[in-house]
Amino acid sequence: MTSCHRGAKGLSRAERVAIFGGSHGNEMSGVTLVKLWLENGVEIRRRGVEVTPFIANPRAVETCTRYIDSDLNRAFTTENLRAPHCEDLPYEVRRAQEINQIFGPKGSQDAYDVIFDLHNTTSNMGGTVILESTQDDFNLQMVHYIQSAIAPASCSVLVNDHPVLKYATTRSVAKHALGLEVGPQPQGVVRGDILEIMRKILKHALDFIELFNGGMEFPPCTVDVYRVSERVDYPRDECGNISGLVHPDLQDRDWEPLNPGEPIFQMFDGRTMLYEGDSTVYPTFINEAAYYEKRQAFVTTRKDQLESSKELLHQTSINRRL
Amino acid sequence: MTSCHRGAKGLSRAERVAIFGGSHGNEMSGVTLVKLWLENGVEIRRRGVEVTPFIANPRAVETCTRYIDSDLNRAFTTENLRAPHCEDLPYEVRRAQEINQIFGPKGSQDAYDVIFDLHNTTSNMGGTVILESTQDDFNLQMVHYIQSAIAPASCSVLVNDHPVLKYATTRSVAKHALGLEVGPQPQGVVRGDILEIMRKILKHALDFIELFNGGMEFPPCTVDVYRVSERVDYPRDECGNISGLVHPDLQDRDWEPLNPGEPIFQMFDGRTMLYEGDSTVYPTFINEAAYYEKRQAFVTTRKDQLESSKELLHQTSINRRL
Repeated sequence: MTSCHRGAKGLSRAERVAIFGGSHGNEMSGVTLVKLWLENGVEIRRRGVEVTPFIANPRAVETCTRYIDSDLNRAFTTENLRAPHCEDLPYEVRRAQEINQIFGPKGSQDAYDVIFDLHNTTSNMGGTVILESTQDDFNLQMVHYIQSAIAPASCSVLVNDHPVLKYATTRSVAKHALGLEVGPQPQGVVRGDILEIMRKILKHALDFIELFNGGMEFPPCTVDVYRVSERVDYPRDECGNISGLVHPDLQDRDWEPLNPGEPIFQMFDGRTMLYEGDSTVYPTFINEAAYYEKRQAFVTTRKDQLESSKELLHQTSINRRL
Repeated sequence: MTSCHRGAKGLSRAERVAIFGGSHGNEMSGVTLVKLWLENGVEIRRRGVEVTPFIANPRAVETCTRYIDSDLNRAFTTENLRAPHCEDLPYEVRRAQEINQIFGPKGSQDAYDVIFDLHNTTSNMGGTVILESTQDDFNLQMVHYIQSAIAPASCSVLVNDHPVLKYATTRSVAKHALGLEVGPQPQGVVRGDILEIMRKILKHALDFIELFNGGMEFPPCTVDVYRVSERVDYPRDECGNISGLVHPDLQDRDWEPLNPGEPIFQMFDGRTMLYEGDSTVYPTFINEAAYYEKRQAFVTTRKDQLESSKELLHQTSINRRL
């Protein structure tokens, strides 16, 4: 268990919230929902908060591909955001700069309070919220609220604060960054069941923000999370070609325990490759289509519990108390 | 039931057989298997037949997309195959001409005897063989053999000889054209279970050819098939944008009966759209990723039975008899 001792502090109201669809143009639940809300935003309207639906990578959406030149959801590095304008900048770097201008600047007081970034995966991950930090009480209380509200359905929480595997996401522009990742859904397809899971998680998330802004106090909470531990590549031959498949015993078993000695790959030559770690892990993003090019068959995670520092209340409520 | 009265005639031995993977570059079972067999073809070797594995659209395979300029599996029209060489011919038209040169010419005595074209679908179709004619005794006996050999697993047979919906496939170059379509599998992903289904169907198909070439006689047979009947588009608003999803009651129900009055689409405005046909149909290719651009949410099929004309035997066997 990781105990985070932080001083209780009041947070500002989350008054500017954005919902990004199409950070990857072929992940269709987010694209579909954001397009709907751009036409009619009643469903995402909440008291005391401005909610902005936004297509993050319109050219990729138009061509129904993940990206045009490079992965937008890896593009929000300091280097990219500061790159001087020129003709041959990759489209997604230019787009990252635009997004940073509209919703950021990243890391500044002017940045949006919250960005929800809607993603789909071909992996059997169900509804998942991805956090980028263990230190964000607001997000922690939000996912705790979502998990309670959505029960008996579940919403897993994946924390990627890995020093190497963490990447510069589109949502990282905001003060509070949340990825919503729902699967399994093939690229380029909208499935009603998957869309509904995403819609429900987001509904509860917006409800939470409304309640928080309205002055509700949230008692200290503990959240079960999976923390990214290790990236595992497909087995490869000496030329770098993939030489085996995700083992049928592992396929679709996102979030289930994987013990040392259990199968992970079925090799083309008939052998079985076993997991050689020294303790139980919880794989996820198993056999995600977009991660072949990133040389990742799955990531392992470890279970952890995160505690909010104390109760969560916003600055106005604190002032009222004093 | 369609009864096909054709004269019993001996067929030539099927001595030249090709297996195409990557007609669509992101349908990974075929790409993976063909790549394996190009390195080591022991598994597809059979007595009395030359079996050629072949990557049909190498540039699409390289970029893991369906196609580069246009759909190769629609490109084998007379017009395309006769188009004069020029710089700005779409890549797939040039590739179709190359394939026609190597494995055809289409419609000629010089064409390959059999082409198996390996495809994946995001639809829940299981293992399926697609035929383009009801009049091909050789193919009919082959699928009958596959169905018997693969039991208790099933292998559906889809016949697309629809005057409008039939298209000019890659495999149509051969005398006997067979598509193998296995799903569900997302584009860009290899699933072990799906790959194994494809591998098994093909194994039995090649076994059949070996037996046929070896002189085995096949008694008259009857095969249950689904014949393509109608293409159904997604519902659209006045601007042509999709205004609803495949209904959860229909999603994943490929080959199951759909009766008039049953739900087919869940509209974004909350309404349910019902099937308005006048009799029971059997939908398939439900919510296939690649067919959004073709304005097709699913095709309806009707059940039929095809009969082979008489027993199947090849010319040498007939001569031996006479």
